[in-house]
Amino acid sequence: MPRTKPSPKWRSGCPLNASIEMLGDRWSLLIIRDMMLGGARTFKEFLGSREKIATNILADRLRRLEAYGIITMQRDPGDGRKVFYLLTRKGIDLAPVLTEMVLWASAHERTENQVLVREMQKDKLGFIAAVKKRCAEQTELLAKSSTDSHK
Amino acid sequence: MPRTKPSPKWRSGCPLNASIEMLGDRWSLLIIRDMMLGGARTFKEFLGSREKIATNILADRLRRLEAYGIITMQRDPGDGRKVFYLLTRKGIDLAPVLTEMVLWASAHERTENQVLVREMQKDKLGFIAAVKKRCAEQTELLAKSSTDSHK
Repeated sequence: MPRTKPSPKWRSGCPLNASIEMLGDRWSLLIIRDMMLGGARTFKEFLGSREKIATNILADRLRRLEAYGIITMQRDPGDGRKVFYLLTRKGIDLAPVLTEMVLWASAHERTENQVLVREMQKDKLGFIAAVKKRCAEQTELLAKSSTDSHK
Repeated sequence: MPRTKPSPKWRSGCPLNASIEMLGDRWSLLIIRDMMLGGARTFKEFLGSREKIATNILADRLRRLEAYGIITMQRDPGDGRKVFYLLTRKGIDLAPVLTEMVLWASAHERTENQVLVREMQKDKLGFIAAVKKRCAEQTELLAKSSTDSHK
């Protein structure tokens, strides 16, 4: 895949370490979860998460995720003052990571959302493929509508 | 699976959130990586990681990982003043999470250790099974040798 920007400096060349530097905090993966599984796209929607992220932390994490190329910010086609966020291909490719983290926790801890967990357990690859397809369609649709409004 | 201890209080019932609360920091998964892939077992071996973890952070993370039941501390059978750390079943079950994080970063960033990455890409399930088997054998062997020394 073409790489137009130089990679940021990581603490080491280990790919796991690179993942951790991008995602290893208490909030980034929750934002990605809300986009990927909950269809959240706006600042207000992210603020509504059950874990009650603070506005300053949310703003910081959105900036970081955008800088890492995991999400992209778009102007609302109908109202240029409004912005929304979409997962990039790189962000969408996190579906297997999130799925394995959900399966691990649900196997070893008392957690909720057993309907989702059973769906993952029943057909993990099918679940991941469906999530990726839905996210990609949403990204394409919104990117298209944004382009259309500028014609 | 029997649960003898109550789960800690999470920010929400979401299983992804539980994973993040246990692992969502800049160091815990690197310690698990060093145990899982590098065979590290002692404080000194963890300190030798390429990312240069500080001693106080390492001590804190080992305590946290033990409290979450991801690793277990054992006395060295030959010298009771020495301790070493082993992955529990719960810790070993993180192999798919680490694998997906490695594959994701190596697909989207410039990273090293391409031999390992190719091995994962070629046969992901086989790789995970082999890692789990090796860790389980190590845990059993060391636990056995620890028990033997107390007979």
